[in-house]
Amino acid sequence: MPDRSPSDVIKPEVRRLSAYTLKHVKADVKLDQNENPYELPRELKEEVVRRVLARPWGRYPEFVPASTTKALARFTGWKEDGILIGNGSNELIMAGLSVILGTGKKAVIPQPTFTLYKLLSSVYQSNAVTVPLKPDFTFDVEALVEASKDADVTVICSPNNPTGTLLDPESLKRILNRTSGLVFLDEAYHEFSGQTALKMLPAYPNLIVLRTFSKAMSMAGLRFGYMMAHPEIAKEIHKAKLPYNVNVFTLAAAELVLERPDLLRDAIQTLVAERQRLITEVRKRPGLEAFDSCTNFFLMRTPRPAQEIFESLYAQGVLVRDVSSYPMLERVLRVTAGTPEENDRFLQALDKSLETT
Amino acid sequence: MPDRSPSDVIKPEVRRLSAYTLKHVKADVKLDQNENPYELPRELKEEVVRRVLARPWGRYPEFVPASTTKALARFTGWKEDGILIGNGSNELIMAGLSVILGTGKKAVIPQPTFTLYKLLSSVYQSNAVTVPLKPDFTFDVEALVEASKDADVTVICSPNNPTGTLLDPESLKRILNRTSGLVFLDEAYHEFSGQTALKMLPAYPNLIVLRTFSKAMSMAGLRFGYMMAHPEIAKEIHKAKLPYNVNVFTLAAAELVLERPDLLRDAIQTLVAERQRLITEVRKRPGLEAFDSCTNFFLMRTPRPAQEIFESLYAQGVLVRDVSSYPMLERVLRVTAGTPEENDRFLQALDKSLETT
Repeated sequence: MPDRSPSDVIKPEVRRLSAYTLKHVKADVKLDQNENPYELPRELKEEVVRRVLARPWGRYPEFVPASTTKALARFTGWKEDGILIGNGSNELIMAGLSVILGTGKKAVIPQPTFTLYKLLSSVYQSNAVTVPLKPDFTFDVEALVEASKDADVTVICSPNNPTGTLLDPESLKRILNRTSGLVFLDEAYHEFSGQTALKMLPAYPNLIVLRTFSKAMSMAGLRFGYMMAHPEIAKEIHKAKLPYNVNVFTLAAAELVLERPDLLRDAIQTLVAERQRLITEVRKRPGLEAFDSCTNFFLMRTPRPAQEIFESLYAQGVLVRDVSSYPMLERVLRVTAGTPEENDRFLQALDKSLETT
Repeated sequence: MPDRSPSDVIKPEVRRLSAYTLKHVKADVKLDQNENPYELPRELKEEVVRRVLARPWGRYPEFVPASTTKALARFTGWKEDGILIGNGSNELIMAGLSVILGTGKKAVIPQPTFTLYKLLSSVYQSNAVTVPLKPDFTFDVEALVEASKDADVTVICSPNNPTGTLLDPESLKRILNRTSGLVFLDEAYHEFSGQTALKMLPAYPNLIVLRTFSKAMSMAGLRFGYMMAHPEIAKEIHKAKLPYNVNVFTLAAAELVLERPDLLRDAIQTLVAERQRLITEVRKRPGLEAFDSCTNFFLMRTPRPAQEIFESLYAQGVLVRDVSSYPMLERVLRVTAGTPEENDRFLQALDKSLETT
């Protein structure tokens, strides 16, 4: 029998990671995952289903999903051979980091931010240098410029999750100009901010832009994301992307949504207005602090331990995200903007939880 | 501007990989991807679609896909907390290798075999030690036992792709008993062979079994696979598995298929009988060699360059896989067993191609 235990074969960096668990998952009012509560139109869904029933399920998706990639090229204006599609943008983050990061490589990652980047950096045994946001949750541009100089990868989520803050284009250019590595710009929430670095792609061969259909595009259940990069970089990342990665159902849905770019405009406008209403309302409550956001969610600091408010809201059927264990986010909850009715329920539940906790 | 070119940031091991391309993709008779030509029943597909239309698409899949995992536990008899599901088994291969392989790690991989293992081993910058099959395409057990002693990962695809050969249970046990690492046993084609190492799982904490719904289960277009391992190993691999990785459509389909374990039995029996008929028929052709197989495909050595026969078949609407660039497979084509009618068309086209090339 082997002289080491089977789990000793696992990298120590992985064994040290705590397993991510989610205890609270179901609720009447779900404001915890930054999803879009407005569904795609029924007739579009039925067309997706018709297309899927008309093709074989036992056959692999196309090796090169040309029609989806072409549709994305039209939608974004970026080159077809610089676009990769994935089972959520997560998959492209993983493929992209895997062809760069390993022992001795350096990844610069602001904190707090979307947790997947740091997790994968650990899995790939690279050196993750974290750069704290400023106390007002804006990016510390000077520190980022300095740290990213000799980095292999610099990660910028803009707008940032969970803070909702943007990096301005001039600061992004400073980083792109000074770093000797690649910049992963995660634009998961760009539709809510109205800002994108798409136009900077031609001038910056070290820029990679990531996007998802899980937020504004209302397709979280279908898993779709895409990456835009210069073709020579996309070609290398493509080598580590699993073949046939996006299923036929999701491909059909993505193509139909891309044909109608205005489809979700009203929903996005409503969610932005509702986020602003929630921030304004929360600020009226004594002792509560609400932070500015460019997304469909915002952060709220409570006077009491976050978990107390979280549990009280949950008991009333309202699920938000407790982010108080993130760096800098003591006593902070993240709240997604829902429909006006859902947001009213949240505010009512919040008032009750402030009375009772 | 940076003093190195952006693509210099990519690992040299990745840059050296040639990009995988597929030129021939469409054909009347598709015998190139080991797919099941028999579709799932229409009423099952319609039930999948009904379930999917009844749930929101804008919401993420469940964080823990409990009902699917429970269904797989019932289907296999293995522990629920030792089962991981993926967007195809490819995704679980990637997650599983990523928590083990890196600089200085050793992966033992028979050759020729499913190419993803060696590719990922390169991406993760580990030391891939290849062990050639014997000239009759059976596994070189002595060499595998020896090479796997100090390996971190040993890969066994049984039945093997592209050769269709099995590793017998006693030889597998020898490897499991002697290696100090984990064994990835890829059972992508196990339904056709009738052999599985599932019953060995309780006794071998270093065994990981991988399965897919893309072959016998006729769901290649939907992307579904699963991994069975001891819970302490599954827990570590889970950390590198992307959350919400399987979309709601595929989850619904997998659950419905798992409720009816006999659903594909007849199709599998037909395909096995057809593979045998094809082997027998090919052996009647002078100059052609056909190799025994335990899967839904077989290898065929041609008297002329494989590409000539391949192109001639393709011109007649029959697509097979040219595997002649694999180690040991000079002048060899891989042919998937299709329906009896498809196989007749293949045999007719083959006769014509032998006359004309």
